[in-house]
Amino acid sequence: MGGDFGPRVTIPSCLQALSRHPNLMIRVFGHQDEIYPHTRKISRDSAARFEIVHTDHVIAMDAKPSMALRHGKGSSMHMALKQVSDGLANACVSAGNTGALMVLGRSVLKMLPGIDRPAIISAVPTHSGHSYMLDLGANVDCGAENLLQFAIMGSTMAQAVDQIEQPRVGLLNVGQEEIKGNEQVKLASRLIEEHGRLNYIGYIEGDDIFSGRCDVVVCDGFVGNVCLKACEGTAQLFIDKLKSSMISSSIKGWIARKLFSGLFNELKTLNPDQYNGASLLGLRGIVIKSHGSADVEAVTNAIGEALHEVKRQVPSRISDRLEAVLLERHY
Amino acid sequence: MGGDFGPRVTIPSCLQALSRHPNLMIRVFGHQDEIYPHTRKISRDSAARFEIVHTDHVIAMDAKPSMALRHGKGSSMHMALKQVSDGLANACVSAGNTGALMVLGRSVLKMLPGIDRPAIISAVPTHSGHSYMLDLGANVDCGAENLLQFAIMGSTMAQAVDQIEQPRVGLLNVGQEEIKGNEQVKLASRLIEEHGRLNYIGYIEGDDIFSGRCDVVVCDGFVGNVCLKACEGTAQLFIDKLKSSMISSSIKGWIARKLFSGLFNELKTLNPDQYNGASLLGLRGIVIKSHGSADVEAVTNAIGEALHEVKRQVPSRISDRLEAVLLERHY
Repeated sequence: MGGDFGPRVTIPSCLQALSRHPNLMIRVFGHQDEIYPHTRKISRDSAARFEIVHTDHVIAMDAKPSMALRHGKGSSMHMALKQVSDGLANACVSAGNTGALMVLGRSVLKMLPGIDRPAIISAVPTHSGHSYMLDLGANVDCGAENLLQFAIMGSTMAQAVDQIEQPRVGLLNVGQEEIKGNEQVKLASRLIEEHGRLNYIGYIEGDDIFSGRCDVVVCDGFVGNVCLKACEGTAQLFIDKLKSSMISSSIKGWIARKLFSGLFNELKTLNPDQYNGASLLGLRGIVIKSHGSADVEAVTNAIGEALHEVKRQVPSRISDRLEAVLLERHY
Repeated sequence: MGGDFGPRVTIPSCLQALSRHPNLMIRVFGHQDEIYPHTRKISRDSAARFEIVHTDHVIAMDAKPSMALRHGKGSSMHMALKQVSDGLANACVSAGNTGALMVLGRSVLKMLPGIDRPAIISAVPTHSGHSYMLDLGANVDCGAENLLQFAIMGSTMAQAVDQIEQPRVGLLNVGQEEIKGNEQVKLASRLIEEHGRLNYIGYIEGDDIFSGRCDVVVCDGFVGNVCLKACEGTAQLFIDKLKSSMISSSIKGWIARKLFSGLFNELKTLNPDQYNGASLLGLRGIVIKSHGSADVEAVTNAIGEALHEVKRQVPSRISDRLEAVLLERHY
């Protein structure tokens, strides 16, 4: 039911994902009257792997997390999360209210041992492929200990999903020198270094997010969220400028369209916005958050990301790694 | 002497600025043996408006601000700043160590009354022109009161330089809803609102920096610095991708070069990196900081920016406005 467009986008995405992934099964939770009209084109084969569970109760996109926690029971989001905690689903995908998904995810699924707060992680494009960045907005105030936990989770994510043996972990800061940064970042740097089991490359600056210098970018949720959205804004500025030169009716516009539509599409994928499907890391289960503004293709990608994480057994790998690492630290 | 390239870039920039601006006079401070070789091509007319003051002492690019403060006396940076406080120059431009420039600027020029800390402000490109963003890295830890002061300074800058009567001021946050953000941002929002004399439009998100929704973007120096560099990284990613398609030897690359070099140059200007010449706001005098990596054209722009601020009497306008506003607040 979530996102800017609701079932109008999420249901066609489900249908598309079902036909792309023959082993996928989807159970959707929401208001049947809003869902049905978008299921008409479902194939016989997909229909056998698709189920609608009706619920009247939906958490509003602008609901406060605290309200969602108090009154969320029986909502489509709560029921979808409950599927994962009950072992009836391998992952939960939502385009709904992020704050609500966080608090309900935490309450329904519980945290992994040793992790205080979940973090939002996503792949971002780089010159050479992609890197992971966290936290992207789950925590607006983070202590150094949280940043260390993010580093451990991000590193394990890169190991599990991309099979990088020793992911390079960088800590986002205003400069690369030892003396730079605020107190919490300096302390976090010391903690990550002392931890000793991460391939920590030290401080990185904003432009390193995209340079490919590291595989995991660690920052607090305020910085991560503002930063990623600013990058999306920059990308949009470029794309709009290019687009306007391509839709011009002149001969130049015509040639541009003929020759460079491929390049243009490639450039569009450099918009971090297109990397849809952020994971809520730190929970005992896979929860994927899709952008509210995501279109059919983007939500399909988010479902694909969930499938990928299920196949690569991300949560159990993270939990194994975390348990080992954190037990070692604390005892 | 500053920047990644020293006099090899800064001196040709001076020569270029002198020939562009017939009323400009430049006095450079640094090691004469390093400066002279780059002055050979100076015109007779420019030579009459150009002066070299020799100094052996230069503050290293990686010197700690505290060291610069203790041992900076007699350095090229210190002497250049002193020109402004002594009334011998209207502005100081430096491509040197930012931290050192901050602390020396503060110690030599002193702060405007009512301002606790200087902030780094720069214009950033938007869909419709540009906006101002501050702080870009002078203060990694800011309280709400600092953010209010940044809002006042930024607003006055937009009034003075761009002659916008009521500049729209936005506060960078992770969401636009009242409930979003960390404590310091929430408190700053209340202070700016209560202040009552700013055209405050409330919270803005990262992508609004470039949307043109506001004229002044207020944030703390950690977020501002990381964010701007990340945007430069995104822009670079796009430019590199475009460039690689244009330098290909294929016929497609040839057509691209012929048809789109104009567009390409236009896109390059969308890189925030090109908006060279950030101002240190809050000091009793004009101090412009050029990027360390700036090329000849970019440093020339920074000198041009200084000239522009002198002509528009930025510091005295800001100080007038600030004095009025702050007196009103405090008494």
